[in-house]
Amino acid sequence: MKIENRITKMLGVDYPIVQAPMGWIARAQLASAVSNAGGLGIIETSSGRLDEVREEVKKMRSLTSKPFGVNIAQAFVRDPGIVQFVIDQGVKFVTTSAGDPQKYCSALKQAGLTVFHVVPSLKTAQRAVEAGVDGLVVEGGEGGGFKNPREVATMVLLPLVCEKVNVPVIAAGGMVDGRTMAAAFALGAEGIQMGTRMVSSAESPVHQNWKNMILNAQETDTVFLNRFGPGPALRALRTEKTTKFEKEPPANIMGEFGKALDLYFGGDMEASIALSGQVAGRIDEVKPVAQIIGETIAEFEETIVQLERKYAH
Amino acid sequence: MKIENRITKMLGVDYPIVQAPMGWIARAQLASAVSNAGGLGIIETSSGRLDEVREEVKKMRSLTSKPFGVNIAQAFVRDPGIVQFVIDQGVKFVTTSAGDPQKYCSALKQAGLTVFHVVPSLKTAQRAVEAGVDGLVVEGGEGGGFKNPREVATMVLLPLVCEKVNVPVIAAGGMVDGRTMAAAFALGAEGIQMGTRMVSSAESPVHQNWKNMILNAQETDTVFLNRFGPGPALRALRTEKTTKFEKEPPANIMGEFGKALDLYFGGDMEASIALSGQVAGRIDEVKPVAQIIGETIAEFEETIVQLERKYAH
Repeated sequence: MKIENRITKMLGVDYPIVQAPMGWIARAQLASAVSNAGGLGIIETSSGRLDEVREEVKKMRSLTSKPFGVNIAQAFVRDPGIVQFVIDQGVKFVTTSAGDPQKYCSALKQAGLTVFHVVPSLKTAQRAVEAGVDGLVVEGGEGGGFKNPREVATMVLLPLVCEKVNVPVIAAGGMVDGRTMAAAFALGAEGIQMGTRMVSSAESPVHQNWKNMILNAQETDTVFLNRFGPGPALRALRTEKTTKFEKEPPANIMGEFGKALDLYFGGDMEASIALSGQVAGRIDEVKPVAQIIGETIAEFEETIVQLERKYAH
Repeated sequence: MKIENRITKMLGVDYPIVQAPMGWIARAQLASAVSNAGGLGIIETSSGRLDEVREEVKKMRSLTSKPFGVNIAQAFVRDPGIVQFVIDQGVKFVTTSAGDPQKYCSALKQAGLTVFHVVPSLKTAQRAVEAGVDGLVVEGGEGGGFKNPREVATMVLLPLVCEKVNVPVIAAGGMVDGRTMAAAFALGAEGIQMGTRMVSSAESPVHQNWKNMILNAQETDTVFLNRFGPGPALRALRTEKTTKFEKEPPANIMGEFGKALDLYFGGDMEASIALSGQVAGRIDEVKPVAQIIGETIAEFEETIVQLERKYAH
């Protein structure tokens, strides 16, 4: 059964479950599986490899007839041509992140795209709404990847933003199953975004070593790095390297991603930094995307029905 | 209308809302207001002033006929007589925290008390269950006070623990209203604990300067201190002092609490460290405890009913 709310209507999907735009990973193989399962697959641009991204978008059209989106990671793709690039791909949905929402919003909206901006605080959420975005991805500090150095947990940030803005909100950070989806909806969200759960899915292209490290991780096995800069703060899996960086970050944290592909696809977990959310501690099995989405929706519905039966007067 | 589940039955209360055991603050004036409003007030021992605590327990009996509890903060009260002290007070409910759950559990249970242990991870939760506790307080890293140095957000920790243990769980960290209560229940909890919301209540004995700082705080205005020890990690409001400590903690963080009373009751916010959760960013008004609890229960019920109406098939 479809879910009907502002997010599924705007995105044209059956289920308000969006896949996070992980650099190098959020490409056609994974994103098409998400879209085909009724969610929304997103193609990344943060790798900066726009020629490859163009090919991935083409592949998407052969792999799925369902809607999908593209992310613009503003801090990583500073090319002013990125807006025209995204418009040229013909997608209808774009998320912008890691930068000022006012920069690209009006150009993207004039071209007819639906624009969601990713925000880590109330102040940035309000700024994005002023810029005219159609909705927000509200990202709690427990999530993986590049983060606001003053990170705020989903349990606090999500209801705060939802009670102060009127645009629809997709919750990110901690989202991994139907219970967390129900919690996010109780806090005011109308959709969820999954990152680490998708990195560890069957269709994810990353090396099995990375997936195994997620399966074996405890909930305490991520680190928050580089809070004081320079460069971005981030959350990643705990390894020898990142445990060292937790106390003493390198002078240039982005330099550590020079060998990212040796980790992502070569499986050398000490070659670079494996971005991950705390939900690594809740993932014990590699599953196909369709199963992840199907189980999430079923558990979401069961959870809200049980709550109502048990506690409504 | 009362809420009926394992927590309200065990505690003998109308509503499964517990007040956190803040040192010096969780005394009769505040705790009796919580118990009289249908929740569970808790008297602290972490101040170490057991003579004063004894008087506070006596005051409780004159201020309320409802159940209340006592907390044993094991790291702060190392006196082996603490167990007998608590038993002698005649309370039926005790939370143990900041220490090994096996240390006091069997003695307290043999004396007929209901024992909940406060845990920051799955491993400590499982150890507490092995020790025979009646239930758990599962404390996410967004909460204020003394913390596990590897903090995990409620959105991740709470469902992880709830799906792996069978004892009832009280959620702490991020709990401030009916929406967060509904989210916690969706994640498997049967009760919630509020700290910062109670510190900023009308009946809280702290200086108005502290309450005002909570009202004015943004969600990004807490700091996580002393992750690498020695001594405990903690979450507190951002001030000049704690901003400095965030980068360079003092050699002995506990020494900073020598002047705690100048901050707590004298209102000098730079005299010590004002422990607080991230929910400070969601609190805009000082309210009486009865109003906090009444609004929380009403919003909780409205939230679960609306979710079911909108999304159940």
